[in-house]
Amino acid sequence: MELSHVDSSGAARMVDISEKYDTVRRAVAVATLVMKPETMTAIKESTIKKGDVLSAARLAGIMAAKKTPDLIPLCHPLAISSAAIAFSFVDDITLSIRSEVVCKGATGVEMEALTAASVAALTVYDMVKAIDRGMTIENIYLESKEGGKSGKYERTG
Amino acid sequence: MELSHVDSSGAARMVDISEKYDTVRRAVAVATLVMKPETMTAIKESTIKKGDVLSAARLAGIMAAKKTPDLIPLCHPLAISSAAIAFSFVDDITLSIRSEVVCKGATGVEMEALTAASVAALTVYDMVKAIDRGMTIENIYLESKEGGKSGKYERTG
Amino acid sequence: MELSHVDSSGAARMVDISEKYDTVRRAVAVATLVMKPETMTAIKESTIKKGDVLSAARLAGIMAAKKTPDLIPLCHPLAISSAAIAFSFVDDITLSIRSEVVCKGATGVEMEALTAASVAALTVYDMVKAIDRGMTIENIYLESKEGGKSGKYERTG
Amino acid sequence: MELSHVDSSGAARMVDISEKYDTVRRAVAVATLVMKPETMTAIKESTIKKGDVLSAARLAGIMAAKKTPDLIPLCHPLAISSAAIAFSFVDDITLSIRSEVVCKGATGVEMEALTAASVAALTVYDMVKAIDRGMTIENIYLESKEGGKSGKYERTG
Amino acid sequence: MELSHVDSSGAARMVDISEKYDTVRRAVAVATLVMKPETMTAIKESTIKKGDVLSAARLAGIMAAKKTPDLIPLCHPLAISSAAIAFSFVDDITLSIRSEVVCKGATGVEMEALTAASVAALTVYDMVKAIDRGMTIENIYLESKEGGKSGKYERTG
Amino acid sequence: MELSHVDSSGAARMVDISEKYDTVRRAVAVATLVMKPETMTAIKESTIKKGDVLSAARLAGIMAAKKTPDLIPLCHPLAISSAAIAFSFVDDITLSIRSEVVCKGATGVEMEALTAASVAALTVYDMVKAIDRGMTIENIYLESKEGGKSGKYERTG
Repeated sequence: MELSHVDSSGAARMVDISEKYDTVRRAVAVATLVMKPETMTAIKESTIKKGDVLSAARLAGIMAAKKTPDLIPLCHPLAISSAAIAFSFVDDITLSIRSEVVCKGATGVEMEALTAASVAALTVYDMVKAIDRGMTIENIYLESKEGGKSGKYERTG
Repeated sequence: MELSHVDSSGAARMVDISEKYDTVRRAVAVATLVMKPETMTAIKESTIKKGDVLSAARLAGIMAAKKTPDLIPLCHPLAISSAAIAFSFVDDITLSIRSEVVCKGATGVEMEALTAASVAALTVYDMVKAIDRGMTIENIYLESKEGGKSGKYERTG
Repeated sequence: MELSHVDSSGAARMVDISEKYDTVRRAVAVATLVMKPETMTAIKESTIKKGDVLSAARLAGIMAAKKTPDLIPLCHPLAISSAAIAFSFVDDITLSIRSEVVCKGATGVEMEALTAASVAALTVYDMVKAIDRGMTIENIYLESKEGGKSGKYERTG
Repeated sequence: MELSHVDSSGAARMVDISEKYDTVRRAVAVATLVMKPETMTAIKESTIKKGDVLSAARLAGIMAAKKTPDLIPLCHPLAISSAAIAFSFVDDITLSIRSEVVCKGATGVEMEALTAASVAALTVYDMVKAIDRGMTIENIYLESKEGGKSGKYERTG
Repeated sequence: MELSHVDSSGAARMVDISEKYDTVRRAVAVATLVMKPETMTAIKESTIKKGDVLSAARLAGIMAAKKTPDLIPLCHPLAISSAAIAFSFVDDITLSIRSEVVCKGATGVEMEALTAASVAALTVYDMVKAIDRGMTIENIYLESKEGGKSGKYERTG
Repeated sequence: MELSHVDSSGAARMVDISEKYDTVRRAVAVATLVMKPETMTAIKESTIKKGDVLSAARLAGIMAAKKTPDLIPLCHPLAISSAAIAFSFVDDITLSIRSEVVCKGATGVEMEALTAASVAALTVYDMVKAIDRGMTIENIYLESKEGGKSGKYERTG
């Protein structure tokens, strides 16, 4: 496997991006939640004790995108240009969360998009855990990214 | 579904725990990562460009447990008594992450354990994404929790 | 004026509360926003470009209550037991924000309640500033507090 | 799912600024505090138990300007170029706080200036609340801003 | 060396303190700065361009005590009861910074005191670096601590 | 009120850098730890109860570099391009920590490098304090910096 410039000691370090140029970068990540049908009904009907689940999860995801460099040790701090979260009810037990993050900078926003989707999913869990402790977050992954030297990526399969 | 004390307006709020008593509470969460066999080899052999993957993921997970109330809007701040992360290689493409969080307090640490496992998984992704952008986080869930009025929970199936 | 234990040098310090006992403490703060009638209409009809104003302001206020010791230099860190924000439309230009914070601890939650109300108000401003830059936050004050050695306080007049 | 256009559902999102260009932007905000005459005397004579009130409020305001994107959910993170806070005693019960924030970036610093002024005011309250719990923060508003597509704004009246 | 309960794998973890009882704990740390005589004169005469050095360093140190669990990966979060910073001019090139932190909790505040002293010292450096880039922080150490199972410690020599 | 000029009153303020241009800036800082020989042996042999000391200290230092503007009141927020920490065992009681931080921006990264080295040193202390409470951090200083109007600096002597 071509690992350019592997640090011979294996020590963690933040990769130097000072020579990279700024481009518009975009990343989309997805998280899926599987729950009981009655949990989904409660989310849709907003009868959850802690309040409106999707509004809270959306804001939590957006705010988490901004906190990514605080959470992921070797992530570069960067000033994101936008963050958005969308929800869709796939079937009567599956909620899909899709995050999109954009920035104009020297490094990508994959981690920001993945963190946003993950924290949105965790917030949904927090708000419904009193009625569905077994809810599972499934399949957090990067759907696509564009911008930067490595160019466009689209998940396949 | 029995939703005690549903706020009639549906507005988000942090549930009042001032009348709850302190007990020792414990929660265990699990996150699973699926990757290419050569990625797992690189993690095991510590030839990842950004450094030792599991050490970084472990610390990131522990630190994230402490940040949980900053991330999850309606989570209560609480002083955790311990946090630990363990890794196991399930097969040649599957890495399992297990977090355990303990506190002595008036509310549970399920969200702290889930957040720790999630951020540990995201950190693994960050460190190997240059060689395996398609790596997927699967199956983040609560394995067990104990303490508090609702008592013991063990995930089944 | 009776300033017990004035530090002779005038240096800032966090007052020692290690000898104080834990009681349930509660504080209510109020913030008022004055805006153009069409701004209020847009808030009520949720036609603001940035999204649902009151949901975002509510969550921002609750999260800010948790961040109070990070913002106010000499505030003690404390684990709040609950935080809630309520809105009321006083007339066609006046929005009133009321925050209530509770904790069981050795010091009061006045600053947490005031910070929650202030950040909720700032969030409203942020979301509507594109259409009403002249909106004013008026009259942030402590409405009441109870618990602790100094007992109950109710604002008069 | 067309996230990049105006969301018809009214969901909160961080507006995309990746196509906007960097300009020098400046914003000035004002907060006013009304207190008892003896409180103002104590502030002026620095006989407050918690220490020098205005020094602490000034630093808290400057630090809060930097925390704005953590507090206001849909604010863009940005690297401010300067922040300053000035105080003036308007009369024997009125303290005026003026904040000025500058940045070179793709979005304005109105929220940073308003947050700085608000947190400076809250810090004053915190430091004198033991002697004047009824102190009120009045009239937080944007005085002026310049830079960016919408150009110069000066509050009138 | 008697290392009780060494984790056989050597993995980082936050030691479990849920079985420990709360006592009042106190720690004092010291940091020393060595600078040019003219730098010390500028600090004393408050002619530093960035403002009053010792006020800023004092507040920064107190605020840093509260951030300790965010900075030191395996530190337990705890609610400190007080924090204070004192300065003394030892001679015409030496400034001594002394921090004292108190808490009532299940673990000590040594790291809080050391972090407070260190960040106060770094803040002094920041404010005078334009005139004395060679300033050195010397001898950050724990002077004493009391409370908890291990009891009282006083540095000797 | 002329905030943009040098404040004659000596009030703290964040110096305006909006007119400064972006260059690549680099800073190297050093911190030294002096400990008992058996402590150093325990670090080298990774028999410390809390886990692998140097891995944790390295990550803590890198993460602290990103938190510098949160800790040092008048530091400008900036997006660092890289951060790295190296350790060397100078003799059987002396551990040297060297941090290097790079950014492309309008102000230097001296404080980021110093903060990274300091927090790495504090983390080492935290992890071994159970066996060596008398460990001392010595000689935190800036070794060199380059970039910006003031150009290159190398510590002498």
